[in-house]
Amino acid sequence: MTAGADDTRRGGGYRQAGVDLTAADEALGRVTELVASTYTAGVLKGLGAFGGLFELPAGYRAPVLVASTDGVGTKTMLAGRRGAYTAIGRDIVNHCVDDILTQGARPLFFLDYVASARLRPEITAAVVAGVAEACREAGAALLGGEMAEMPGVYAADELDLVGTVVGVVEKDLIVDGSAVTEGDALLALPSGGLQTNGFSLARAVLADALDEPFEGGTVADALLAPHRSFLQAAVPLLDAGLVHGMAHVTGGGLPGNLPRCLPQGLGARIERGSWPEPPIFELIRRRGRVDEAEMARVFNLGVGFVLAVAPGDVAKAVRSCPEPLHRIGEVVAGEGVVWG
Amino acid sequence: MTAGADDTRRGGGYRQAGVDLTAADEALGRVTELVASTYTAGVLKGLGAFGGLFELPAGYRAPVLVASTDGVGTKTMLAGRRGAYTAIGRDIVNHCVDDILTQGARPLFFLDYVASARLRPEITAAVVAGVAEACREAGAALLGGEMAEMPGVYAADELDLVGTVVGVVEKDLIVDGSAVTEGDALLALPSGGLQTNGFSLARAVLADALDEPFEGGTVADALLAPHRSFLQAAVPLLDAGLVHGMAHVTGGGLPGNLPRCLPQGLGARIERGSWPEPPIFELIRRRGRVDEAEMARVFNLGVGFVLAVAPGDVAKAVRSCPEPLHRIGEVVAGEGVVWG
Repeated sequence: MTAGADDTRRGGGYRQAGVDLTAADEALGRVTELVASTYTAGVLKGLGAFGGLFELPAGYRAPVLVASTDGVGTKTMLAGRRGAYTAIGRDIVNHCVDDILTQGARPLFFLDYVASARLRPEITAAVVAGVAEACREAGAALLGGEMAEMPGVYAADELDLVGTVVGVVEKDLIVDGSAVTEGDALLALPSGGLQTNGFSLARAVLADALDEPFEGGTVADALLAPHRSFLQAAVPLLDAGLVHGMAHVTGGGLPGNLPRCLPQGLGARIERGSWPEPPIFELIRRRGRVDEAEMARVFNLGVGFVLAVAPGDVAKAVRSCPEPLHRIGEVVAGEGVVWG
Repeated sequence: MTAGADDTRRGGGYRQAGVDLTAADEALGRVTELVASTYTAGVLKGLGAFGGLFELPAGYRAPVLVASTDGVGTKTMLAGRRGAYTAIGRDIVNHCVDDILTQGARPLFFLDYVASARLRPEITAAVVAGVAEACREAGAALLGGEMAEMPGVYAADELDLVGTVVGVVEKDLIVDGSAVTEGDALLALPSGGLQTNGFSLARAVLADALDEPFEGGTVADALLAPHRSFLQAAVPLLDAGLVHGMAHVTGGGLPGNLPRCLPQGLGARIERGSWPEPPIFELIRRRGRVDEAEMARVFNLGVGFVLAVAPGDVAKAVRSCPEPLHRIGEVVAGEGVVWG
């Protein structure tokens, strides 16, 4: 009878000692350097046997921690078919970082969870490599993680990938949408694709089309377009104090997410066609005969992140931003999203 | 074609707006009150549209955040057969809280992730009810969570449950084992059962015995014994400054976990029989003909948590602790665990 240890824990760069070298341990060995490469000044090294330790940077007057847990959904299935494991590792970090960015928070650290019926070391290492890369880019320490083997719980060759980010924002700099007023301009950062939402529908529609050539690659490539991090693009606008509210466009699309950053009594008028829609959405719309309301509710349709700024600050916002911003609409009296 | 929204996010007590009332949403409605019941003074209510916000308590000189992500492993399968969903909700919180307790950290907040092929609202609500209960008991706010439907990734009727805890400890009060010296006494808090580790082996051995009467219940009941929180028992010893090192006995057993809190050059001599072993372990040992080395590597064998204290402080530690402590051995020169 073999050991059947269910899991291997990482914390503070430690390996779990005294346990047989299982597949999980082997993968862990490969990723140790990658994890260490993410360590920022806050990480207390060599201390975290059971949990990762992170010293809050000095100088905050009233630090507020902002935390979010998320998964990449069934994008894992498509990524698995295509070996895009590093890509989904990056996706989960960027997704979580974008979530807390909406409140003005910068990431401090990240923890990941990878589970499968059987862990294959090369797959786990590829996932964590992507997680570590994206953490480095975001300035987030990969503080801990868990790799779990759960035969019977997961379908063969499938995996789940879950991330948790913890960030910080000065209390009086929290962006909660309360500053949004009627007439504010809505500026979009483009998504480039599905990000990590809508894969159940997309896979259903395009199941037989994955290998078809599409936009210089395949349909699968287009579906697997990275979940972008909007941190670098939004930070200059935040630092300049231009931002009244922000929304990360995930499951629920613009109608499901944009109202979350608007005060009671305010809605958004969005001009269709005011931003470039990645071609993959038209393919899904056409092949699946998906009506427009559903398209807008399930997919981001090319709008990854929305910033509300005063109309008089739009030019300054555009100049501050290191990438093009698309003015997609404005804040109006009412509620929800109306299409113009 | 239906919406196929992959997930529903909870953050700061918000419901995701504008999305169809799916099974996930229905479950979410049921748990909103439970979640709110965990809110401590640090939670900034009504702000967290995309992430949960938590204001660090004032008064820390050099606050160090301690974080850990974990799952309950294949205990989910047994819990599912027995409808013990609230129990595993409690288990994941206690597991995470115990992990960061080893460094002297008290929990601030917790985030959960529940995923399944199809979310059944009554099951999700039961899981989150347990999570919320244990959070309340630990003084941790349930700050956010994610419920994901991933058909194709999970086997039918199975689920995974992942938790992340973030706690805080004053930097000069971190317990990292560096204070442990030769001759320190090792005091154990009892586990009462498997906690959340060793279920792959236990289920393999006892697959046909689950309904057998055992110790006033069934074998399954004994296997599902709660993962205990050791927070309340350990805090008085921490507050009294008695603790040199702590270990949470999870996967890897005493040999895999106890050395993690010992400085280089020190090991532990453990006296077999110096603590009460829950009868379930003898059943597994006998039925599975599992040798003692494997038993000790896979299971906690009744030792849930270990505290290293100076031999002269044992009496004081026992008086300070609200429950019985078992002196199970001592710190010796060498490495790893030797059995006496």
